[in-house]
Amino acid sequence: MECIFCKIVSKEIPADVVYEDDKIIAFKDIHPVAPVHLLIIPKIHIPSIDHLELKDKTLIGELFLTAQKIAREKGVDKTGYRLTFNIGKDAGQTVDHLHLHLIGGKELPWL
Amino acid sequence: MECIFCKIVSKEIPADVVYEDDKIIAFKDIHPVAPVHLLIIPKIHIPSIDHLELKDKTLIGELFLTAQKIAREKGVDKTGYRLTFNIGKDAGQTVDHLHLHLIGGKELPWL
Repeated sequence: MECIFCKIVSKEIPADVVYEDDKIIAFKDIHPVAPVHLLIIPKIHIPSIDHLELKDKTLIGELFLTAQKIAREKGVDKTGYRLTFNIGKDAGQTVDHLHLHLIGGKELPWL
Repeated sequence: MECIFCKIVSKEIPADVVYEDDKIIAFKDIHPVAPVHLLIIPKIHIPSIDHLELKDKTLIGELFLTAQKIAREKGVDKTGYRLTFNIGKDAGQTVDHLHLHLIGGKELPWL
């Protein structure tokens, strides 16, 4: 098992965890681009959105309900925030374990 | 009903539609930032991720399975793409109807 996010799930690698339940874990990005920059991931290993299967449908919904909850806890629901999946090379995906970026706490430039 | 995306759903306003089923519609962004820039939206009016309810869980999953399908049709699954929700002011959300940006076809800068 060489996936670093799987190792965060199994606690082999430490992370600054902000949320955890039986299916999802969220932790701080080690290269933050904004005051709030968290990664929300499913505990099961799904490489990217391109690998999503029909059976993962509700899990993805739960990921976004978790994002909503964390955004409220961090107070960025009041000011705004961005939720992003990067898929593959052109988007700069660096870890091949599905991870949702939650970014906020300042005005975010558009592409 | 003043929401412009609801008017796209009801065909009161034209759009360059690339996908449609009973729950979801996808169309080209009128201000594209990349060769592929589409908006994938639920037909029901949900203002943003901050307004998501438990009952919308599977709909969100379906939105991402649709994004996966469209990305493959457009060929950006090979090169990479980004999927983004902007929520509120700091993220620059301009239309208050949940819309998922699908962006690809070139190397995308990170924030």
